[in-house]
Amino acid sequence: MFRKNQVFFFGLFFLLNFSTVVFAQTSVDSAVFARISSEALVHGEAYKNLEYLCKKIGGRLSCSPQAAKAVEWGSRLMKSYGFDSVWLQEVQVPCWKRGQKEEVLLQNSQGKRTKLSACALGGSVPTPANGLKARVVEVESFDELKRLGRKNVEGAIVFYNRKFDETEINTFRAYSRCSPLRLDGADSAAALGAAAVVVRSLTGSSDEHPHTGAVRYGNNEKIPAFALSTQSADLLSQTLKKNANLQLSLKSDCELLPDEISYNVIGELKGSEHPEEILIVGGHLDSWDFGEGAHDDGAGCVQSIEVLRIFKALNIKPKRTVRAVLFMNEENGNRGGITYAEQAVVRKEKHIFALESDRGGFSPKGFSFKAKKEQLARLFLAKELFVPYEAADLQPGYGGVDIDPLSKTGTVCAGIVPDSQRYFDYHHSAMDTFDKVHRRELHLSSAVMAMLMYWVSEYGL
Amino acid sequence: MFRKNQVFFFGLFFLLNFSTVVFAQTSVDSAVFARISSEALVHGEAYKNLEYLCKKIGGRLSCSPQAAKAVEWGSRLMKSYGFDSVWLQEVQVPCWKRGQKEEVLLQNSQGKRTKLSACALGGSVPTPANGLKARVVEVESFDELKRLGRKNVEGAIVFYNRKFDETEINTFRAYSRCSPLRLDGADSAAALGAAAVVVRSLTGSSDEHPHTGAVRYGNNEKIPAFALSTQSADLLSQTLKKNANLQLSLKSDCELLPDEISYNVIGELKGSEHPEEILIVGGHLDSWDFGEGAHDDGAGCVQSIEVLRIFKALNIKPKRTVRAVLFMNEENGNRGGITYAEQAVVRKEKHIFALESDRGGFSPKGFSFKAKKEQLARLFLAKELFVPYEAADLQPGYGGVDIDPLSKTGTVCAGIVPDSQRYFDYHHSAMDTFDKVHRRELHLSSAVMAMLMYWVSEYGL
Repeated sequence: MFRKNQVFFFGLFFLLNFSTVVFAQTSVDSAVFARISSEALVHGEAYKNLEYLCKKIGGRLSCSPQAAKAVEWGSRLMKSYGFDSVWLQEVQVPCWKRGQKEEVLLQNSQGKRTKLSACALGGSVPTPANGLKARVVEVESFDELKRLGRKNVEGAIVFYNRKFDETEINTFRAYSRCSPLRLDGADSAAALGAAAVVVRSLTGSSDEHPHTGAVRYGNNEKIPAFALSTQSADLLSQTLKKNANLQLSLKSDCELLPDEISYNVIGELKGSEHPEEILIVGGHLDSWDFGEGAHDDGAGCVQSIEVLRIFKALNIKPKRTVRAVLFMNEENGNRGGITYAEQAVVRKEKHIFALESDRGGFSPKGFSFKAKKEQLARLFLAKELFVPYEAADLQPGYGGVDIDPLSKTGTVCAGIVPDSQRYFDYHHSAMDTFDKVHRRELHLSSAVMAMLMYWVSEYGL
Repeated sequence: MFRKNQVFFFGLFFLLNFSTVVFAQTSVDSAVFARISSEALVHGEAYKNLEYLCKKIGGRLSCSPQAAKAVEWGSRLMKSYGFDSVWLQEVQVPCWKRGQKEEVLLQNSQGKRTKLSACALGGSVPTPANGLKARVVEVESFDELKRLGRKNVEGAIVFYNRKFDETEINTFRAYSRCSPLRLDGADSAAALGAAAVVVRSLTGSSDEHPHTGAVRYGNNEKIPAFALSTQSADLLSQTLKKNANLQLSLKSDCELLPDEISYNVIGELKGSEHPEEILIVGGHLDSWDFGEGAHDDGAGCVQSIEVLRIFKALNIKPKRTVRAVLFMNEENGNRGGITYAEQAVVRKEKHIFALESDRGGFSPKGFSFKAKKEQLARLFLAKELFVPYEAADLQPGYGGVDIDPLSKTGTVCAGIVPDSQRYFDYHHSAMDTFDKVHRRELHLSSAVMAMLMYWVSEYGL
């Protein structure tokens, strides 16, 4: 009891003390915030940088020539801004290739064939060269699959057709309810002897684009996995209701080649007072092969670089070291995030704070923090400063996939939370292109990211 | 002193008392809010109704055949939903016609002509049939115009080239700094003997579309007024720097015909306990002739109808009378709003609350209220209920142009405040089309409007 109280009183004392310091600084901080905002909104370069990344390089799956070009681009860009140092960090990445032949054909009882809008899920094994044909079992959940059991599932194609819950206000909550089916659906179906899986695209919108994403195999047989566009999923479901014996033909020739070397791209401004305390701001440089990886996550990359560019432009010399990190391979392995955290341990680097932008380049609403109670209380002291920028919704929550490995060694992780209504319209599909990003929305989010990075670099945690 | 204190204590007593009632109801209210949200997000009809209005009817300037069609559409739609009563209210509207010939030519010192992207401002008088040619005087403000004085301005075309202040987070603040130049610029320039005015389009984006809007003449000579696209305004300004003597040629044949009769369209659900207390929710049915009037303000119209549709669908019987009002002629006269308020006085109707949606159909952030302090305090009691819907930013402020005439007789006015970053990209231009509206953003805003209307209809003001 005594120890607990002691900690509590010490915490309270510390917090009150810290609050006083922070509140005394409020007018100074708001002036800095205003300068950051003006720089981002009037002279922001994130949008034009994103245009280059999307239009000159495009979709950049790990191990692709485009991913290599993106590494060069990120490094060149950060050097051109004159950051204190810019370097590449080796990351061993998986080399999954989509191949050419992806085909999902629906065959009805009259033998009529309809081509569905589909693609292989990322990491999927291929079908046999001649394709694969089987009856279809539709389920909405793993529970439903288990209830059907091996006798119904064996030899069949399992069709995971779970819709987004449209009543969720934040669309990420709808996504997180469906994403396990895409990630682990093949493994769970294989456990019951299924031949393959087709998964309804993870979007709330009705469209003809398959939305891809990673599949994860476990100890069961690796079976082919496909995404169906939501419209094709609806068609398949309706057709199944009329003809439960219909067959699907699947064909793909994706392949997994040996790992290759790629890179995280890192730029740094050295801290003026506590250079040993490191803060990072990042996004991921790889994307799926469809589209241009604009919102996911070109936006996060250009915003992260923009944070350091703004510091330089405004002659803000952060007290603690601030890095922009463009992570490689978030989409199908998270090797960049894992490697970065491992290397931080190896090099005995003290990472106190990591901010990620990986929820699209939309208007900001606030931040979510993966942090201890007393750290949250400290961070929440900044809340009022974000009100003028319409980004004062500070909540406990998740940071981001790339930075999460750092949280295991005590780094406070944060994610910027933008408006989520449009994100999954584009996510992992051919729709995720530069024209879906709005200049001011992107720049306003860059601004509030720079504000948070400034504030933490100033006061520590 | 005594009276003041008495009023204060009575107010406090009342408020505390009221708070108790409201807080006791919170769980009931949040359940109703959740039902409203689900109905709007899963079964919402605002988006498909807006598609019809935009695609089958299109731009609908007061007095145009499209405006007449929109009146029929609004009335038919509300009747189809089975509202208790639906009726038209006569409104005498101005009949301004754009005509065919709009031309702004820039002629440089070598005689080379460049066509600028321009249009007549709404309500402008025409140029002489052969057009009008004069040198150009560029200013950023009325102060600058006054300093130049008659000797510099007489006979010239005044070019108002004030840019949006990009540092404003809410773009409506940037707009309100520039809009007086469009509205009163012609009159102020005419006072100093100018021949015409050209006004930089009121948008922060760089595009080739002229953004129109109303011009207001005073006691000075009525001179022709044009909008220039922001890119054309930049070109003109740059060319003027090289050649201060360049000339602009202007041509337009707009005309003002006699007023005609049009209508506000009104649908009503009768109050179950206090039918004599009326709440309205509205938007304006007219739009500019370019584009489809999607965000401005088709969105507000379909959302207002949606509020009553949601009440019907959920069997919510409001305690007070709730009306959806589609106002005619907000853009160039506000005759619909003025007539509605006048008729409310004539009919001795007690309007306690009016909510307008006229800031675009984007994701909601909250509401602004034009109300007395104690009314604000009552309304703010609802704040927490809006948190789950990301719309809890309740602020004192403005309601809307259409409902503002009601505020003079004590009606509390409110406006929904959506995210403002994209609005002025489209506003009053050919860009304001249906494809710029996002289904979930529109429906989420409809939902929070219905919540506020429900809450006020339940507790009064």
